[in-house]
Amino acid sequence: MSGLLTDLYELTMAAGYVAAGKAHERATFELFVRNLPPNRLFLVAAGLQQAIDYLLNLRFTADDIGYLRGLPQFSRAPEAFFTALGDFRFSGDVFAVPEGTPVFAGEPILTVRAPLLEAQIPETYLLATISFQTMIASKAARVVEAAGGRGVVEFGTRRAHSPEAGTLAARAAYIGGCLGTSNTEAGRRFGIPVYGTAAHSWVLSFPSELESFQQLQKLLGPSAIYLIDTYDTLEGARKAASLGRPLWGVRLDSGDLNELARQVRNILDDAGLDDAKIMATGDLNEYRILELTAAGAPIDALGVGTELATSADKPNLGAVYKLVELETGGEKHYTAKLSEDKQTYPGSKQVFRYRDRDLIACSWECPTCATGPGGEAEALLRPVLIRGALVDDLPDVHRARQRAAAARKRLPAACRSLYDEHKPYRVEYSGELLALNEQTRKRMQESAP
Amino acid sequence: MSGLLTDLYELTMAAGYVAAGKAHERATFELFVRNLPPNRLFLVAAGLQQAIDYLLNLRFTADDIGYLRGLPQFSRAPEAFFTALGDFRFSGDVFAVPEGTPVFAGEPILTVRAPLLEAQIPETYLLATISFQTMIASKAARVVEAAGGRGVVEFGTRRAHSPEAGTLAARAAYIGGCLGTSNTEAGRRFGIPVYGTAAHSWVLSFPSELESFQQLQKLLGPSAIYLIDTYDTLEGARKAASLGRPLWGVRLDSGDLNELARQVRNILDDAGLDDAKIMATGDLNEYRILELTAAGAPIDALGVGTELATSADKPNLGAVYKLVELETGGEKHYTAKLSEDKQTYPGSKQVFRYRDRDLIACSWECPTCATGPGGEAEALLRPVLIRGALVDDLPDVHRARQRAAAARKRLPAACRSLYDEHKPYRVEYSGELLALNEQTRKRMQESAP
Repeated sequence: MSGLLTDLYELTMAAGYVAAGKAHERATFELFVRNLPPNRLFLVAAGLQQAIDYLLNLRFTADDIGYLRGLPQFSRAPEAFFTALGDFRFSGDVFAVPEGTPVFAGEPILTVRAPLLEAQIPETYLLATISFQTMIASKAARVVEAAGGRGVVEFGTRRAHSPEAGTLAARAAYIGGCLGTSNTEAGRRFGIPVYGTAAHSWVLSFPSELESFQQLQKLLGPSAIYLIDTYDTLEGARKAASLGRPLWGVRLDSGDLNELARQVRNILDDAGLDDAKIMATGDLNEYRILELTAAGAPIDALGVGTELATSADKPNLGAVYKLVELETGGEKHYTAKLSEDKQTYPGSKQVFRYRDRDLIACSWECPTCATGPGGEAEALLRPVLIRGALVDDLPDVHRARQRAAAARKRLPAACRSLYDEHKPYRVEYSGELLALNEQTRKRMQESAP
Repeated sequence: MSGLLTDLYELTMAAGYVAAGKAHERATFELFVRNLPPNRLFLVAAGLQQAIDYLLNLRFTADDIGYLRGLPQFSRAPEAFFTALGDFRFSGDVFAVPEGTPVFAGEPILTVRAPLLEAQIPETYLLATISFQTMIASKAARVVEAAGGRGVVEFGTRRAHSPEAGTLAARAAYIGGCLGTSNTEAGRRFGIPVYGTAAHSWVLSFPSELESFQQLQKLLGPSAIYLIDTYDTLEGARKAASLGRPLWGVRLDSGDLNELARQVRNILDDAGLDDAKIMATGDLNEYRILELTAAGAPIDALGVGTELATSADKPNLGAVYKLVELETGGEKHYTAKLSEDKQTYPGSKQVFRYRDRDLIACSWECPTCATGPGGEAEALLRPVLIRGALVDDLPDVHRARQRAAAARKRLPAACRSLYDEHKPYRVEYSGELLALNEQTRKRMQESAP
């Protein structure tokens, strides 16, 4: 994992920390989302596996270092900086919310505590990794919610922000509740179920639509899903029905999906194929799916691509990675950003989840109620790396998906709305954290000018 | 490059083509964008280098094939399919519009002509690769247009859809007109200039803001850009000014950028630092930049992150990859999709660019006016791979960027608007193509039912 996949300023700052004799000061950074995006009442944490893989494998090769030496920005960098890069091994501690956990604005999803140089360099990669997958898992949870029990398959790689983004989107969408993906690499790499139908090119490559369906049935048997809209959807449905079993069903990809689904359902039923299913695809998102389900369209499964794999209505989260503590000059300093529109809270934190609310507290607080599974509150941030080593295997995507499903059920019903803007879930700050915040801001305002 | 990074249905269709004895039929697919996104009057083609790298290196390992064998969808696949995957080498022809070229809706950006199996499997990867970079290069062109000559640097990797997407976004943004990127890996991999400043964590890690600036100056000298909004922006500017030269300038990241830039400019000028520059960052996009430039804010450079690297106002293009020709049963068949809302044109095409309009024609047409550089029209689609081999080295990002800049200047001025909805550029279809379309549709409608 090349250490160069980061913003240049992480590396110039690292050089500066070495020059200032600060590279080994112990720093704590927290990664969190400032505000919930429009219409989102919660997020689903995801991407931790890739974040940890990165930290465990982050290295600088001789080539990497040679490239940096050639840049004007490093012409005054101390030699010890380049040595530090050559020796780079992440040796810090990481605490994180398990994948699949619902999280809210301001709650750390990941905390890094490490020597300043080691904690600074990963900022860019960690942000891109956690915030992208969290965004997609959260979008998937919405789509699955709208589908009301109908299966949703992620079909979006072709429209994702690069093929690799599509593969990671498939992973996150599965955690968020999708049944699986069309991305074969994601299937193999992460053990996610893979699904597929056939394209218009399949139908067009045969002399007739009927022949294309016959060939598909021969190949796929009970997995055969006929795409019936290449010529005329209802004619296509009749041809599919004429072939009888085995088949899984048919796919609608254009037109008025509600109306067509009803007519196609009748065609299938009239042919005695009441077990044949109807899948709908074609620029779907949670809003259009909600319309279809509200209208009672006889659709059994949904393939969602572009809008899911790009989180089209909100294609980025305002995730940030903020320095909250630094052990410098022999004592611990709490830090925060004072600028009006981008304030942050100082100090390393823990999030305690009660039945109906969250409490963001200082990490050293231990509310008597936070007594683990048997107690009243759950501490969301758990140790993942200690002194650079994995504490325990990370849960795989299947467990993350189960966690997400179970946790969603425990959220107040109002949180599952696709539209609500009044943020029904209470997230509070502990008295001790509020006091630390006041104190830190006062100290910073006094010492700054 | 694992062949599995594609949609499952590309592979099941490939198996079906083998089963039906059609895998070697010569197919032509075209990749194009159906409609220009809102507010976009042109797109900038990008991503070809990665698309070609993929085609040249696409392979299926024994592991890949073993994975597919274990899937239920391949239980009836013929053995010859797995053999074909093991032997896979792309042996087809590729024609493409050079990176950096403006393109319009319906114009093929890439044409693949190959045996059906070889042309079908790459669909997903090619779409994700070309459409993502084209989208970002197009967005960058808008941002650069709004900046009106001020330098724009791409800062978005942390908000991109995975770190790899950020690296490719940096490449595309450079082609679209950015000066460079903060992504160090993109700098090394593609030879793009890299830039950076310092983060709030840098400022906060020192006992005082002034000390953090002093250290930065020591490290970076004339490249030093002070981030001045951690405590109080104007105070920050005064501290930066107090250090005198060398410096590049300061960065504003929050607050009213126009107002602050004016006050900071005064502070710098009063200190005799009239050559010190002001960079603005913080959730910028082409619309906000246009406001700032229209207001005459004294900003010299802009760092644009999230909105650029995710093309936030339109995070996906409706790019498609459509079968337009197939040589089957000893003769050439032209194909198109008839469904009302997603029609396509049959036959392999060429795009001729005249001074003020484009003509989409059949690939075998040779308008007398299309006589190359000396003539009146330019043929945009050029051979890239012939029988699986590179015809010529692809232009690098620097030449693609020059091409984009020169081509933008040649577009009618109205095309460069950031808002206009009336699509001022004329794209016409040749008489021969329109006739082929009529003919094909008639034949398909007659033969289909």
